[in-house]
Amino acid sequence: MPKESASKPVKPALRSRKSPQGSPTVQDVARLAKVSVGSVSRVLNGRENVASAIQEAVRAAMAELNFVPNVVARSMRKGSSSAIGCLISDITQHTAAQMVSAAEERLRARGFEILIANSHYDLERERAILSSLKQRRIDGFIGAISDDETPSYFNFLHTLNMPVVLWERDAQGEFNSVLTDHADGCRQAVRYLASLGHRAIALVAGHENTWVGREMVRGYQAACEVAGIAPDPALVLRTSAFDKDVCRALLTGRGRPTAIIATLNDVAIVLEVVRETGLSIPADLSVISIGEHEYSGIASPALTVVTQSPRDVGREAADMMLQLIDGSAPSGIRRSKHPMRMIVRESCGAPPGLARRKKR
Amino acid sequence: MPKESASKPVKPALRSRKSPQGSPTVQDVARLAKVSVGSVSRVLNGRENVASAIQEAVRAAMAELNFVPNVVARSMRKGSSSAIGCLISDITQHTAAQMVSAAEERLRARGFEILIANSHYDLERERAILSSLKQRRIDGFIGAISDDETPSYFNFLHTLNMPVVLWERDAQGEFNSVLTDHADGCRQAVRYLASLGHRAIALVAGHENTWVGREMVRGYQAACEVAGIAPDPALVLRTSAFDKDVCRALLTGRGRPTAIIATLNDVAIVLEVVRETGLSIPADLSVISIGEHEYSGIASPALTVVTQSPRDVGREAADMMLQLIDGSAPSGIRRSKHPMRMIVRESCGAPPGLARRKKR
Repeated sequence: MPKESASKPVKPALRSRKSPQGSPTVQDVARLAKVSVGSVSRVLNGRENVASAIQEAVRAAMAELNFVPNVVARSMRKGSSSAIGCLISDITQHTAAQMVSAAEERLRARGFEILIANSHYDLERERAILSSLKQRRIDGFIGAISDDETPSYFNFLHTLNMPVVLWERDAQGEFNSVLTDHADGCRQAVRYLASLGHRAIALVAGHENTWVGREMVRGYQAACEVAGIAPDPALVLRTSAFDKDVCRALLTGRGRPTAIIATLNDVAIVLEVVRETGLSIPADLSVISIGEHEYSGIASPALTVVTQSPRDVGREAADMMLQLIDGSAPSGIRRSKHPMRMIVRESCGAPPGLARRKKR
Repeated sequence: MPKESASKPVKPALRSRKSPQGSPTVQDVARLAKVSVGSVSRVLNGRENVASAIQEAVRAAMAELNFVPNVVARSMRKGSSSAIGCLISDITQHTAAQMVSAAEERLRARGFEILIANSHYDLERERAILSSLKQRRIDGFIGAISDDETPSYFNFLHTLNMPVVLWERDAQGEFNSVLTDHADGCRQAVRYLASLGHRAIALVAGHENTWVGREMVRGYQAACEVAGIAPDPALVLRTSAFDKDVCRALLTGRGRPTAIIATLNDVAIVLEVVRETGLSIPADLSVISIGEHEYSGIASPALTVVTQSPRDVGREAADMMLQLIDGSAPSGIRRSKHPMRMIVRESCGAPPGLARRKKR
């Protein structure tokens, strides 16, 4: 141990650069490095395309200040608790709940609790939630933001000065992300339906401004093109504007589809309307569910699905977060993509017209 | 507006009894009233069976200190956010997710966010979560504790000094609570199965030490007695010890039941095992689901259920919380009980033996 006197020459110099409260903060690092707090956050989150001069300045300032990220400092204190904030769109969505549950298992094993909040795709609310979680001293943030297209929103995330891992959102190289290959999922679904003879295939895609929504449409359009199906904009819907009335109009109106692809919650709406209108699956309508839960296989008829692995996504996001927190993350932003897999059951068949023609 | 000078005579007197930080706290109230902080919490939570001398002392101290509950003070400050902590056992349980979702709608309309945490029926973890939420300055706590039988646990909740509302747990007169009549739910299920001729009726009940678990067993036993069915302890299982292996052993072993009653998640296990073992519903086994989701009615066969109203429970719990927070709650602890209702679909029939006898 160095003697009191030995450490004295260093301490005053440090103290002058520290916040009055004690330990050096991200703000102190930014001040000393003469960069923005956003830049410090980018370095902390492992972003590579930060100018190397800035990276060096930040690392030098951290070293000089003996800067310890909040979370590590806190977990070193006895009796304190650590928590990761988790933002999802809606707790009642089975797939998101599975991701959270798997991430939680992983984080809990390392002493972190998860605090979950719902955004309901409300951007203003989401900002308020994230600021509130930050004020409540969470140590990192995992989840799905409502808009992964707007650069200013990423800047907002950076101002939170926390490790961030996004799932099912395109982090645009700003943060680590874990994704599911929804474009390929929809490609598989369309390819299968086209092979059965369908030409009028409806899609209920995820939300606008999100990876899931964009990729579902992209995969759908690409597969339609390959199959020589001309795109009909009236057949591409969004979950945000899909309810029983919209579904009824779609399935009973002119130019109605012979097949429909939709995510878990929207498939439930489709099945309810099919039952009410007396349509028959797959005789009148083929249905493919993107995502599944334990009841998908025992529905009547058993549903053909394109499954994802929400638990794998949740686990990997948690592992990325833990590495960012304990400093063991490999350098550079990581982006991981999980495959989707089709399980054929009983909810798809030839389209009604084709079936009739074949009978003749 | 009173002039500066007019308010001056009061301020010094107040200041001397306040915490050094500023506004008076629950601790300050307890000190001045010469009672425990738990007693202050009991008065704040509207508990009636607090000795009237203590009630008076607490109210007098609150008035003298001009005590404002944390949450109201905070929401009066500009830009600050308010949050209610919500403890559930498992985010992947559909019924709990519905309760949270409905409570959230209500609380959000009044400017409160909900922060959700999962206990997984782990009592130590739950205490850590609640302490952590308290440290993170939440303004109240709604949810389901893992043990509603142990008095010391209620004392722990009181030491948190927050408004508390429990759902689906017996608050033993200590806090407001919103319940579902699970005893009557199981009574209806057993009565219906007995009317079809079943004598060997299995039950997968909720967790021990909780209202749901106790009440399910109580209603089941009462209805068996009325139907003249001798209780078989081997047929009463708990969700905590129910998985595919246990279910397979139950459904294929000696003394196997001809009918089974289980909650949503456990019914999914039953249906999977039924499918694997080649049993037929309802020919070999009648099934009743306690609780339902959008797929229950479209399962094959469509499931007979006893439904609850999780959204009503969530909404009422949120309303109780808001009244505790804004001081508009009627005096006294409230305990509300919601009914259950049976929906007969296709998953129940006569027991196999009886069906065979009838055919002869």
